Amino acid sequence: MKAYEKLSHIQKERNTLLCIGLDPDIDKLPYHYPRNSKGILSFCIDIINSTKNLTAAYKINFAFFEVLGKESFGIIEQLIEQIPNEVFIIADAKRSDIGNSAKFYAKSLFDYFKFDAATINPLMGRDSIDPFLTYTDKFTFALGLTSNIGADDFLKQILWIEKPFFSFIIEKLAEWYPRENIGFVVGATQSDYFTEIRKIVPNHNLLIPGVGAQGGDINKLKEIGLMPSLVNVSRDILYHKTNDDYQMEVIRKTSYYKHLLAIE
Amino acid sequence: MKAYEKLSHIQKERNTLLCIGLDPDIDKLPYHYPRNSKGILSFCIDIINSTKNLTAAYKINFAFFEVLGKESFGIIEQLIEQIPNEVFIIADAKRSDIGNSAKFYAKSLFDYFKFDAATINPLMGRDSIDPFLTYTDKFTFALGLTSNIGADDFLKQILWIEKPFFSFIIEKLAEWYPRENIGFVVGATQSDYFTEIRKIVPNHNLLIPGVGAQGGDINKLKEIGLMPSLVNVSRDILYHKTNDDYQMEVIRKTSYYKHLLAIE
Repeated sequence: MKAYEKLSHIQKERNTLLCIGLDPDIDKLPYHYPRNSKGILSFCIDIINSTKNLTAAYKINFAFFEVLGKESFGIIEQLIEQIPNEVFIIADAKRSDIGNSAKFYAKSLFDYFKFDAATINPLMGRDSIDPFLTYTDKFTFALGLTSNIGADDFLKQILWIEKPFFSFIIEKLAEWYPRENIGFVVGATQSDYFTEIRKIVPNHNLLIPGVGAQGGDINKLKEIGLMPSLVNVSRDILYHKTNDDYQMEVIRKTSYYKHLLAIE
Repeated sequence: MKAYEKLSHIQKERNTLLCIGLDPDIDKLPYHYPRNSKGILSFCIDIINSTKNLTAAYKINFAFFEVLGKESFGIIEQLIEQIPNEVFIIADAKRSDIGNSAKFYAKSLFDYFKFDAATINPLMGRDSIDPFLTYTDKFTFALGLTSNIGADDFLKQILWIEKPFFSFIIEKLAEWYPRENIGFVVGATQSDYFTEIRKIVPNHNLLIPGVGAQGGDINKLKEIGLMPSLVNVSRDILYHKTNDDYQMEVIRKTSYYKHLLAIE
């Protein structure tokens, strides 16, 4: 089964667009986890065990693991083993390099870790993206319009052809690669631009972060046309003030987002 | 000593702008190294031992290590230990993410591994770059105009203000951050644009890949103004057809580039 079919299948089966972002911040761990690699691993495994039947996907944010140094990739490997086979897994690594190097990043994420999908930064152009797209059984999300304030600095700059830079990137990638393999990261905080993006790629999968802690308005996106997409929630599911019944709170929040992001 | 001082000091002492790129491709290893993590590690250690007194810097390309999976970061750590303290070390990881994630990438590269410098992809804008630049004792090279053909796709697109996108990026970053902390990756293959870039940042450090295997013309760059910069050579120093006296060939090539890239 190709990655895009796996995604669509699990989304229908669980009736949700929810993707849980595994961003384990050592400073925010509940007190009963040690503040080290082992604590990060146990915390993530507990989150996975509480949520693995309620979500369509997990997104592993490499930054939060790489800070652990030499143990980081081993921990990511152990986490992947905990995730049921039918659940879609995204490597959120935002890699970018010239073709000769990019092929090793793709090999790491797709062949070694066996992720279903990866995020990439498309700035360096086609030959830097090709090595990911040669994996026709996998899926690649390129940065489209990111959720952060810094998206104003470069991605929203207007080209001489009177298009913002992000539109140009999305258009080109949609032209170069099949819809079965390429999608775009579009921040939920960018709802003012969502209509424009959906005009360019009405049927492409979007990976939408920025809901919850970052304040993105999911209802506005729903009105414009959320499908097909995956909506990522990280902090709002992972971190809670309570220390008693922590996992109950995780499950409660996950269920809330699962239903908010129902397909029907 | 701040990173930019360390760089300038070792460059003067060794009278060279040479940076050796550690891009250990498992398929290109000489036959006497096993084609696994151990082989990669021994190969890199042998390269370092042959060249550590002839170069101003090493650039570790993360892609070539990450393909090794869970052992990758441990291998990078062991390599760093082999490099003399006075030699400048760059993490070529081209990371990019929103501020909250980018700070963990910066922490990994600067606090954990203790690199002197890192490469970043600036596409996501200022808040994605800030976490690297808060390390005022370190140095950050942002992608300016990369060496690959794909640089034509996005980086050379013209904005409505009649500037190419890469010029706009370089201008903004030079405006936002002190020259002691920010530099730019500019491919040696982009010599037609080098005059334009040196007009914007005449005194900023550039990290210049694309010499050797990629065919960049270093003499043309010298005419325009190479200093201050670091010129990276990877494949042309690392790989040779011979299997006898392999390290002699490494030393011969390194000496060639050391002199080609002499300051005076």
